[in-house]
Amino acid sequence: MTLSLLNDDHYMREALKQARYALAEDEIPIGAVVVLERQVIARAYNQTEKLRDVTAHAEMLALTAAANHVGNKYLADCTLYVTVEPCVMCAGATAWAQVRRVVYGANEPKVGYRRHGHLLHPRAEVVSGVLAEESSQLMREFFARKRK
Amino acid sequence: MTLSLLNDDHYMREALKQARYALAEDEIPIGAVVVLERQVIARAYNQTEKLRDVTAHAEMLALTAAANHVGNKYLADCTLYVTVEPCVMCAGATAWAQVRRVVYGANEPKVGYRRHGHLLHPRAEVVSGVLAEESSQLMREFFARKRK
Repeated sequence: MTLSLLNDDHYMREALKQARYALAEDEIPIGAVVVLERQVIARAYNQTEKLRDVTAHAEMLALTAAANHVGNKYLADCTLYVTVEPCVMCAGATAWAQVRRVVYGANEPKVGYRRHGHLLHPRAEVVSGVLAEESSQLMREFFARKRK
Repeated sequence: MTLSLLNDDHYMREALKQARYALAEDEIPIGAVVVLERQVIARAYNQTEKLRDVTAHAEMLALTAAANHVGNKYLADCTLYVTVEPCVMCAGATAWAQVRRVVYGANEPKVGYRRHGHLLHPRAEVVSGVLAEESSQLMREFFARKRK
């Protein structure tokens, strides 16, 4: 395993912590962190229920928090880690923020952005499948509870 | 002209007012309103510069405000009016909010959602070209100023 992969695992574990906070609050358990120069500068989890706002996805909240942190709406040198494949909305937000590296866990074939093509920044690198099983397990747990 | 078209013009004029507020604040001049049962329940204009936040598009702010107004994140019975074709991010947000009718003014071939297909809610009706010239004129004015 390369150092880079180890690092991706490390930051994805931070995103998974966020996802677990979402699960504890009965939100769809998706978490995200933004990393700049090996530092986590923003953490967020999905809050669409609590805020009654479809735009309150983990990635959106993390991007806004990261922009506040650096005092710049462009996050070209940042990596976004998110536990599940981003949706169209969030993919579009990363493009506007010029995020050049997006790392996600589980694929989301139904509502993920990928079936619509490359909606991220044209020069963005994408890494998928990082700790995907942990991410999927949280999602399964949430939807199993809902069915009860 | 049908009554429906007259109404669309009327609400688009409200969105254009918002776009003019954006122009006055040196933001890309795009405005949006959300209409429910013939009432404007949310108004917003692009604030990406002021808020240093790429997610602060007129449509996003208007959808969040509309959800706050109705106390529900789903806006299926609402119409979104926006002066310019929504981007991928905003199109995705309207899909999540289940907005069934989207009316916009000027086309935005470069960064509009349409070149990626139908990213709105599957059952959303789209009306384009409403007061498009007024919307385009504001955009031209903004970019002409920027070039000076």
